[in-house]
Amino acid sequence: MPSIKDVAKKAGVSVTTVSRVLNNRGYISKETRRKVEQAMAEIDYHPNQIARALQKSQSYLLGVIVPDSNHPFFAELIKYIEIYAHEQNYKILICNSSDDPDKEAKYIAMLRENRVDGIIMCSHTLDIEEYKKVKLPIVSFDRIISEEIPYVGSDNFLGGELATEHLISRGCQRLLHISGPLELDMLPNRRADAFKLKCMQHNIPFKIVECEFNRLTFDYYRDLITHEVSKYLNDFDGIFCSNDLVAYALYVYAAQQGIKVPEQLKIVGYDFHSFTRMLQLPKLTTIKQPIDKIGKVLCSTLIKMVGGHEEDMISNTIVSVELIKGDTT
Amino acid sequence: MPSIKDVAKKAGVSVTTVSRVLNNRGYISKETRRKVEQAMAEIDYHPNQIARALQKSQSYLLGVIVPDSNHPFFAELIKYIEIYAHEQNYKILICNSSDDPDKEAKYIAMLRENRVDGIIMCSHTLDIEEYKKVKLPIVSFDRIISEEIPYVGSDNFLGGELATEHLISRGCQRLLHISGPLELDMLPNRRADAFKLKCMQHNIPFKIVECEFNRLTFDYYRDLITHEVSKYLNDFDGIFCSNDLVAYALYVYAAQQGIKVPEQLKIVGYDFHSFTRMLQLPKLTTIKQPIDKIGKVLCSTLIKMVGGHEEDMISNTIVSVELIKGDTT
Repeated sequence: MPSIKDVAKKAGVSVTTVSRVLNNRGYISKETRRKVEQAMAEIDYHPNQIARALQKSQSYLLGVIVPDSNHPFFAELIKYIEIYAHEQNYKILICNSSDDPDKEAKYIAMLRENRVDGIIMCSHTLDIEEYKKVKLPIVSFDRIISEEIPYVGSDNFLGGELATEHLISRGCQRLLHISGPLELDMLPNRRADAFKLKCMQHNIPFKIVECEFNRLTFDYYRDLITHEVSKYLNDFDGIFCSNDLVAYALYVYAAQQGIKVPEQLKIVGYDFHSFTRMLQLPKLTTIKQPIDKIGKVLCSTLIKMVGGHEEDMISNTIVSVELIKGDTT
Repeated sequence: MPSIKDVAKKAGVSVTTVSRVLNNRGYISKETRRKVEQAMAEIDYHPNQIARALQKSQSYLLGVIVPDSNHPFFAELIKYIEIYAHEQNYKILICNSSDDPDKEAKYIAMLRENRVDGIIMCSHTLDIEEYKKVKLPIVSFDRIISEEIPYVGSDNFLGGELATEHLISRGCQRLLHISGPLELDMLPNRRADAFKLKCMQHNIPFKIVECEFNRLTFDYYRDLITHEVSKYLNDFDGIFCSNDLVAYALYVYAAQQGIKVPEQLKIVGYDFHSFTRMLQLPKLTTIKQPIDKIGKVLCSTLIKMVGGHEEDMISNTIVSVELIKGDTT
């Protein structure tokens, strides 16, 4: 591979001059700059970003750890993180933790060894203390870790309110909520909080069933509905599902049992990712998370931290959500 | 950040000894190794992979350029590439070209500057000559570029045969194929070749309509069906769609027009990615590409090339496909 010396030789200038052109430093005449650039093109020279990273101790690499990069929510989030990172001249390294604490820990170590400038954590299986030990800028998606680690999430409480109010306004009298796992202090649990509160305010009897969030097989959601939810279908006329895949599985189950949606049972989902947008039979009523905005804010917050901007500029961000009316309510 | 010198000091050994432990080189007693490893843990030392990359001129980074990392086919492919790369100690950099030749060219330059060890090309908008100029190992997905650049793809011809034979065996008498763009010499065009051949062998009248492949909005496919395909629906009783998203849009259109599937119209798709596996109403009849295997072979072929194995070991790979019988035939 051609080196900076080859460029200097070809252009008939010193190595220092080539270095000045590359780094935009010091005075360089237009003519010299032209000669150097032409020499670079002719011998197909590309500056070595790895060497520059070592010199500047900045790699312009960001790690992104997700449970499953193929899940439609994370696939979309990754896409927008990549697009915004690229605009800022950063590259992203993708890591699939499969919600396995061991894998998550190993990925964090790998990312440190590869000198990423920071990490976007969308997988949350380790104890909070483990994240605090990582001496790198971290931004967390959907989980409060510590005061030093900013988080980004959608307005989960508002989402829970919108979904519950909508079901009540459509005439539901007994409400069920299928939530994610509630034992971790995850921000999406605010959906369940808002659901409870709204039900109590309106004197509506309610119940909550927990499920796992990041599964990507229809079988998992079908079995969940069959074994954990179906027994309640006679007692509840409105169900707020904390993700669109379980909402769809619930609709399919209802259709197969001859339960009419929305006449006998109303369903609201959560996410509005590419699967939901593509789905037409039925169009789900759901809460839309602005995944593009979440990706952009995760990225810009982390890049601010990498840049060493003052701490008081780094803040948590909650982005708003909206109800998308479909055919299931 | 602690350095190798700090480790040596803490462990009471020389820098050379620490380096030997890190690189597994030369004789090191168990006791010395234990001391060094303990010192690394105590002062939280992580070897600098960037410095090692520079030294060895190998970065263990692979670039992956796709049209849209959020498309369910590429999201799944990326997931498997990441998993297999990680097993071999490689990391992947994701690039979204959005099928834009300018972006694709810029990403290739960026990947070179970041000294990736090789590139998996799943986006194909540049002229073949442009790829030949890249002085890096490249593996191509679904396109023949040159003799030096191996390709990996599914058995598109077999897929076309299976789909067409299946429609004929289900009693179809006039067949339509919705293909990808046929002007580029892309391997998926073999599906159209097989379709044509089978129709001719069976004396079945046929027609081919082209569409774009990598779109991820229902609106695009709905408009395509409405404007380019609907006029043929009275004349054809079986349609082989070259991707599952267009097959689903066709099904939705037929349902809205009161055309009974599969009684009046039979539909076969192609891909069987996570969208199709999640979809239940209807379950699509489709050709399954083994996306996990494609990801694994793309990865292992590229890593072999990076390792500088003999050229005759590097070969093109065609992986087999199978028909998944659903409710649309």
